[in-house]
Amino acid sequence: MKKLIIIALLVASVALTGFSQRKIVNLPDIPGFVTLKCDFHMHTVFSDGDVWPTVRIDEALRDGLDAIAITDHLEYTPKEDYIPIDFNAAWKIGEAYAKERNLILVHGTEITRKMPPGHFNALFITDASLIAKDSVWDSFEAAAKQGAFLQWNHPGWKSQQPDGIPRMYEVHQKLIKNGWLNGIEFFNDNEYYPLVFSFCKQYNLTLMGNSDVHDAISEVYAGEENSNRPMTLVFAKERSHDSLKEAMFTGRTMVYFRDMLAGKEEFAKPFFYRCISVGKPFYQNDKSIFFEVTNKSDIPFYLTNGVQNAPANITLSANSVTRVVLSKKVTVPLVYDVKNVLTGENEVLKIELR
Amino acid sequence: MKKLIIIALLVASVALTGFSQRKIVNLPDIPGFVTLKCDFHMHTVFSDGDVWPTVRIDEALRDGLDAIAITDHLEYTPKEDYIPIDFNAAWKIGEAYAKERNLILVHGTEITRKMPPGHFNALFITDASLIAKDSVWDSFEAAAKQGAFLQWNHPGWKSQQPDGIPRMYEVHQKLIKNGWLNGIEFFNDNEYYPLVFSFCKQYNLTLMGNSDVHDAISEVYAGEENSNRPMTLVFAKERSHDSLKEAMFTGRTMVYFRDMLAGKEEFAKPFFYRCISVGKPFYQNDKSIFFEVTNKSDIPFYLTNGVQNAPANITLSANSVTRVVLSKKVTVPLVYDVKNVLTGENEVLKIELR
Amino acid sequence: MKKLIIIALLVASVALTGFSQRKIVNLPDIPGFVTLKCDFHMHTVFSDGDVWPTVRIDEALRDGLDAIAITDHLEYTPKEDYIPIDFNAAWKIGEAYAKERNLILVHGTEITRKMPPGHFNALFITDASLIAKDSVWDSFEAAAKQGAFLQWNHPGWKSQQPDGIPRMYEVHQKLIKNGWLNGIEFFNDNEYYPLVFSFCKQYNLTLMGNSDVHDAISEVYAGEENSNRPMTLVFAKERSHDSLKEAMFTGRTMVYFRDMLAGKEEFAKPFFYRCISVGKPFYQNDKSIFFEVTNKSDIPFYLTNGVQNAPANITLSANSVTRVVLSKKVTVPLVYDVKNVLTGENEVLKIELR
Amino acid sequence: MKKLIIIALLVASVALTGFSQRKIVNLPDIPGFVTLKCDFHMHTVFSDGDVWPTVRIDEALRDGLDAIAITDHLEYTPKEDYIPIDFNAAWKIGEAYAKERNLILVHGTEITRKMPPGHFNALFITDASLIAKDSVWDSFEAAAKQGAFLQWNHPGWKSQQPDGIPRMYEVHQKLIKNGWLNGIEFFNDNEYYPLVFSFCKQYNLTLMGNSDVHDAISEVYAGEENSNRPMTLVFAKERSHDSLKEAMFTGRTMVYFRDMLAGKEEFAKPFFYRCISVGKPFYQNDKSIFFEVTNKSDIPFYLTNGVQNAPANITLSANSVTRVVLSKKVTVPLVYDVKNVLTGENEVLKIELR
Repeated sequence: MKKLIIIALLVASVALTGFSQRKIVNLPDIPGFVTLKCDFHMHTVFSDGDVWPTVRIDEALRDGLDAIAITDHLEYTPKEDYIPIDFNAAWKIGEAYAKERNLILVHGTEITRKMPPGHFNALFITDASLIAKDSVWDSFEAAAKQGAFLQWNHPGWKSQQPDGIPRMYEVHQKLIKNGWLNGIEFFNDNEYYPLVFSFCKQYNLTLMGNSDVHDAISEVYAGEENSNRPMTLVFAKERSHDSLKEAMFTGRTMVYFRDMLAGKEEFAKPFFYRCISVGKPFYQNDKSIFFEVTNKSDIPFYLTNGVQNAPANITLSANSVTRVVLSKKVTVPLVYDVKNVLTGENEVLKIELR
Repeated sequence: MKKLIIIALLVASVALTGFSQRKIVNLPDIPGFVTLKCDFHMHTVFSDGDVWPTVRIDEALRDGLDAIAITDHLEYTPKEDYIPIDFNAAWKIGEAYAKERNLILVHGTEITRKMPPGHFNALFITDASLIAKDSVWDSFEAAAKQGAFLQWNHPGWKSQQPDGIPRMYEVHQKLIKNGWLNGIEFFNDNEYYPLVFSFCKQYNLTLMGNSDVHDAISEVYAGEENSNRPMTLVFAKERSHDSLKEAMFTGRTMVYFRDMLAGKEEFAKPFFYRCISVGKPFYQNDKSIFFEVTNKSDIPFYLTNGVQNAPANITLSANSVTRVVLSKKVTVPLVYDVKNVLTGENEVLKIELR
Repeated sequence: MKKLIIIALLVASVALTGFSQRKIVNLPDIPGFVTLKCDFHMHTVFSDGDVWPTVRIDEALRDGLDAIAITDHLEYTPKEDYIPIDFNAAWKIGEAYAKERNLILVHGTEITRKMPPGHFNALFITDASLIAKDSVWDSFEAAAKQGAFLQWNHPGWKSQQPDGIPRMYEVHQKLIKNGWLNGIEFFNDNEYYPLVFSFCKQYNLTLMGNSDVHDAISEVYAGEENSNRPMTLVFAKERSHDSLKEAMFTGRTMVYFRDMLAGKEEFAKPFFYRCISVGKPFYQNDKSIFFEVTNKSDIPFYLTNGVQNAPANITLSANSVTRVVLSKKVTVPLVYDVKNVLTGENEVLKIELR
Repeated sequence: MKKLIIIALLVASVALTGFSQRKIVNLPDIPGFVTLKCDFHMHTVFSDGDVWPTVRIDEALRDGLDAIAITDHLEYTPKEDYIPIDFNAAWKIGEAYAKERNLILVHGTEITRKMPPGHFNALFITDASLIAKDSVWDSFEAAAKQGAFLQWNHPGWKSQQPDGIPRMYEVHQKLIKNGWLNGIEFFNDNEYYPLVFSFCKQYNLTLMGNSDVHDAISEVYAGEENSNRPMTLVFAKERSHDSLKEAMFTGRTMVYFRDMLAGKEEFAKPFFYRCISVGKPFYQNDKSIFFEVTNKSDIPFYLTNGVQNAPANITLSANSVTRVVLSKKVTVPLVYDVKNVLTGENEVLKIELR
């Protein structure tokens, strides 16, 4: 009997909760900036997606995001027999809905061409219909005229690059020269393109990570550990549409997917140190000192390449306190590589436990 | 290919993590005290449990506990054909093991009699073997002599009280008169006994909640939401064995199980307000203002009985931000009952969202 | 290393599987009939649902269904600013898609009025647009003209019956008299209406259970045990559209939701005995014989009210073999009530373990 | 209200079920033999395990096993300060307990030496204490005298073979020559040793897969898909201790872990065809025919290397019906490699969908 009473309460919670809440995603701010969790690439029934625009907002809330862009294709609208083309439909449907839910909705669209140049999201636009042009260059120009942040999508997508390797064509160089290209996707859906990191460094472009979701999010990213969708973490001066935009144009992002994080060292390092704290030794014996490392974030960190006599590998699981038993022989700083925090195409973050 | 690389990292985490880490349980401290998560009732192969004592320590770490007591029965040792009786065995095996893992291990034992008086844990003892006596009163006296905290276990357990209702017999009154009874279990295993709250208030006893686990914890409390074991939350001056003891003798506890919390209002109120923060309105229209309530804790709160024109019920899900849409007609304070925070046998916590 | 290789295979499976497969739902056929798993009530963007019609077909396959009907509202089309009204759109989009996936798609629509008469699905129709009429009675007549199976939806829905109790109004009696009403929903979404069972028996109507889903199914029915959507189990002569229709008009159904099953005894009894098999004793001692009961189905069965000296309750978990220890004192048949198999408004199935 | 009633039933099931039931593991018999699911390697508190012997039996039932052996170490008994050495303790405690639960308990022990020769389980013995000898060869001889099935455990275990590669030393050759070595572990815990398959073929030894579990099973193999423990599938003439023994000495086994299966083609082929059935075409158009392949087993099968114009890869998910769309151009038999069914060190099963 008692048992039933206790569990009945749980049931009440199931009945009352649901979509109206924003999950707390434990990712810290960095000094001077708030960390906005964002996804700037997704589709609805207004192009080749399978859900209504408000679903994208509800999903974003549940996933704890701060900002999204719905980016239906301009050139691919397979549902037009049933749904008249309206390139701004998702924006019009979502604008007030997002505002009432404290989600930043970014007006966006997707320019969708064969490679080269491939697919591009224009973000922070004012009217998608003006960007739909026969010539892709006219589309780019129209986007630029609206002050768009232009993002090159999945440059190594196998349907367009069968070997999975992103390539810069003349048109991309020209976009860069014009100052019209602002970011490139490093994560898209289940893929990632290491080379993009080098492109971003070389041309001073913003690193992006997005879901490009077409189905319901819950079909693609199941509820297990580290099953979050790809996100762009934007380091903004405050949680607002304009601060978000400023941060993206300035390149203050990292990208996050499953248990991987990637970003320039200037962001990755303070981010890591905000996740982690090292406690004072709680015990020692003749040979070893014992201390704890707390990881308050949702991201596990895999430390490798420990110094001599120190543990070679330490996994700092998400939302956990990890015990470290350290030989008293170790006198040098406890430096490690963080295997799952990429700071370049072939580099990982180096940190010290102190 | 990319896909495989990403997911392979996850695999590494599976391989490296496991038992050596303490989960962060999001339960706040209250002003002046740290909140220690504790379980003071469990068994091993040294009585009728099925696991070795170190398993209890590993499980406690994984569950994010700060302190446990292993309390094997004095009078029920069904494995004695294979394991010679040693009432202090679990303590001896666990003491150093716990210390090296930063877990507070409390020396304990269980006095195990028919009702009355029933079962009792003696905690903070020095030698369990001296408490094993023919007469239960001699056992109580021996425990008292060791300065034990005496806890009456599962007073409404159906094997001893078929109607599930706890009863104070003469022997309990006598224990109380002697100052030898210190706490009573409100939660035990899957049961709870509302009447215990009144006993604790009337006789100034400490409210306790424990697992009484015999199997592996993972067999009993599966990994789903709100599936944590019963815990006693102890409000201690610091995270140490002696502070823990002081707090328990002083009665500074709450108990926690699944999505239920119980404790005196003097603890429940500040605890609630440390879990919850109410944001400034982020939006308003003609009729309503919109604001968010953040619940940083692992416990959902079910608010009920809202004032006129306010939402009648609000579920503040665990680790979530809940949007509240409030009619501008509401001018009185936003008071609510918190349905799952008990402050007495028939009382729930009353709070205000401000 | 080995570890990584093993787990990498699993990853491949994740990558390759997905939507294109039909889960095997373990529900037996009954003598003379195949058991078709069906859901005859769901919505898409063509009324107030949030997904595209093909999503409903994909979801149905994944959930192991044999037949569905998409039943968008005739009188409630809140998306018409963006999607022109086409009452047959879901059917036109889904027909070939379902055929290529071996799913029986039933052409349907929902007549949507205030109570009385409330909401009704017309199933097995030929043209939904002809059923959209100003007068509800004209709609009924148009449906009847198309040979529709008319289902009264959620008759105790609290938005229309605040006390949750279904009521037969004059219009319902008139429908019955005309032979135009064929079934009533017993399960709808998370609700059920016990009284419907009596209505169905009294007026010889078909018992129905459906999801009435508006979101993605995966948002509503999570992947846990007994979290399946409500279903109508139809006992058809073969797996075909026409057999399905014949069986429904003839009333050969049961309804299934979570761990509840409901249907007339003539179906419930053979269904139960097809799920269960009782093994020969595998062991005995002086006092007891030991035997096993196998439940090959996905539905647990809760046996209660055992005869004297037999176990009072036996839970035959889904897809499990349950050991029964039977006292040798028991000489009468082992009859039980099956608590979760309803055979009437206030009746449960009675069975014998033999 | 309705909602609460429905879900309350579920709660009843949680309360009543648990350990007393054997899960149905969907693995088919093969012609002439029943498939017994077995685990012949596990530990308890009587050596270096952490649980009581009856726990191993309860776990085995829950995991749907037919037979287990508890194989505590003879030479490694770290708990002997608290538990007097009794090499037959687990057997004595478990024998009646298993019999009353219809589980075949095999009397076993583990001979535990440095490499060479490494670790060995002696199974189907009569007295473990007689096998505890100073000289390992004396142990082997004593085991042989009891008619033991001798299994070489984890021959590539990195603590004994840092490169993970199993090696046959002189002592192993001598065991083989004497006819004293009967099986080798291919799967052990999370590891597998491809080379073992070649050893087994060359020397006509039985392929074994076991958990070697020390903790509670639930700590090691979580409840997710394909998270089962390693098992030896034994093809026995009937479900009995003696038939099991005969089958093992005769070499009629396959091994199963996660989504991998390994065994000689003579077993793997009929096993696969018992899992799979190919339906008649349910639909066709100008270009393609559509048919379904049913996989009634708990093991997914990953088909690869399809013939020209046929799907290159097909994943037949566990307990699922998979649609295959086949080009009418294909006229040759639909042969595939089954990537996750190993029939040799470097071979996989070849099958035909017909």
